[in-house]
Amino acid sequence: MTTERRPPLRAEYRAFQELTTRWADNDSYGHMNNVVHYALFDTAVNHWLIRHVGLDIHSSPVIGLVVESGCRYFGEMGYPDLVTAGLRVARLGNSSVVYEVGLFRNGDESASASGFFTHVYVDRESKRPQPLASEWRNALEALLQPPESAL
Amino acid sequence: MTTERRPPLRAEYRAFQELTTRWADNDSYGHMNNVVHYALFDTAVNHWLIRHVGLDIHSSPVIGLVVESGCRYFGEMGYPDLVTAGLRVARLGNSSVVYEVGLFRNGDESASASGFFTHVYVDRESKRPQPLASEWRNALEALLQPPESAL
Amino acid sequence: MTTERRPPLRAEYRAFQELTTRWADNDSYGHMNNVVHYALFDTAVNHWLIRHVGLDIHSSPVIGLVVESGCRYFGEMGYPDLVTAGLRVARLGNSSVVYEVGLFRNGDESASASGFFTHVYVDRESKRPQPLASEWRNALEALLQPPESAL
Amino acid sequence: MTTERRPPLRAEYRAFQELTTRWADNDSYGHMNNVVHYALFDTAVNHWLIRHVGLDIHSSPVIGLVVESGCRYFGEMGYPDLVTAGLRVARLGNSSVVYEVGLFRNGDESASASGFFTHVYVDRESKRPQPLASEWRNALEALLQPPESAL
Repeated sequence: MTTERRPPLRAEYRAFQELTTRWADNDSYGHMNNVVHYALFDTAVNHWLIRHVGLDIHSSPVIGLVVESGCRYFGEMGYPDLVTAGLRVARLGNSSVVYEVGLFRNGDESASASGFFTHVYVDRESKRPQPLASEWRNALEALLQPPESAL
Repeated sequence: MTTERRPPLRAEYRAFQELTTRWADNDSYGHMNNVVHYALFDTAVNHWLIRHVGLDIHSSPVIGLVVESGCRYFGEMGYPDLVTAGLRVARLGNSSVVYEVGLFRNGDESASASGFFTHVYVDRESKRPQPLASEWRNALEALLQPPESAL
Repeated sequence: MTTERRPPLRAEYRAFQELTTRWADNDSYGHMNNVVHYALFDTAVNHWLIRHVGLDIHSSPVIGLVVESGCRYFGEMGYPDLVTAGLRVARLGNSSVVYEVGLFRNGDESASASGFFTHVYVDRESKRPQPLASEWRNALEALLQPPESAL
Repeated sequence: MTTERRPPLRAEYRAFQELTTRWADNDSYGHMNNVVHYALFDTAVNHWLIRHVGLDIHSSPVIGLVVESGCRYFGEMGYPDLVTAGLRVARLGNSSVVYEVGLFRNGDESASASGFFTHVYVDRESKRPQPLASEWRNALEALLQPPESAL
């Protein structure tokens, strides 16, 4: 989705959220299992949607389905660290959005991991793609990252 | 729920199910996190209900809510073990059922852990308790354990 | 472990910790899966031990093994709630401790769930029980709940 | 990692493993949470390594760290489905391996999801990359997929 190989910085994200880690996040090797990062991505993005565009998990007529996801791991994290998730939108399509999330360990300025997932918005019943409502589009524009050259 | 302190044996359960373990089940200490056992209890009991009484997770008008649960841990298990869950019903109430589950590591005859949970069956919408349908009651009777004295 | 059937109150616990919920905590029925509560118990107690008695997950010579656990569920919680875990010690044994944890949904005064687990402290290598070090015992005494009559 | 957009078929993988799903795998929308797929990738690959090259999670001097992962989701799966994981190796580097995993729902010939992760093999203590042992390399060659043109 992105070609960068260096860990992104906090300044490259548009919204932030603190997430507590859990004992069970650490695996046999004593650090955060690579799977947990994706659980944090889901949590941070949906939380933003609940707060800023009024997503109702139980009854919104339109829901987001994940069609692709990915993550790069730059450094270890794990329980009992406090993680800050940084959010931005990489692409706003007609009925899809690519969210990018950076995970920052405690006070670090540079991400321990960065990933993305692509949501396609569909009708809850028919599962047919739906064009993004204009209030969603307007809200999500605040998360659009500036072009690379502007960083 | 039960006063026994010795690990139960396979012969003390009425139905069985094989469950694969996962890399993420092991915690920092290298063995199955005590939380995972409860995920296996849920999995084994609901699987039995889906198969034997036709529970439909997405649309059955009555759903089971867990109001109490517990587990005793007798020995270590963990990925990559294969676990067999043994099931029995300890109590069949009017609108509630106490399920007991033993978890057996690989070919062991004696349980590595044994636990229970109490389901109260409620209307999916109103969340009001519902008397167990007679087909459910009949099916669940096959899981009733014999009285202690009979073991 | 305890005979109370009413939801405990915040005032009945001795230490508190805020825990964020995750998207994946909610199950098919749209609320916190009963398993997640145990993940929060582990998280809250070990966090307290790391902070107050210097537990080092990776290298402490003594580790806590869970030999029994249990939970009562009084009301629904779920993502995106913020949960506060209240801690207390119900019993301080020679080499074991019974921890009790109440989980409070957002600003609620009354617990949505309350549970316990029993840690037996063992040598990391031999897995033999070890008497609690006096610094641990002293620290843990601060979490002892007053006798029922004093509440 | 791969440019294909169509769901891969069973015939495109070299080794297979059956994995049971769990009640908790399903999220609020009633299907397998996109995070769980990664837990199945880890499980299938490490299981193969344990069986075929003698990986010992607790004591092997060399361990695999995940530095990148990704997944494409083609269709719904979820509890109580039985999942078959198909494995193949996309790239065998000096000290890294790219594993690709397809997840097949029940008897499906076409994958519900396909993903990859890149393991870098490091010394357990120093975390320095280590060249792959020749027994590992030989074993892993059996998982190498034929060149695209041969499919």
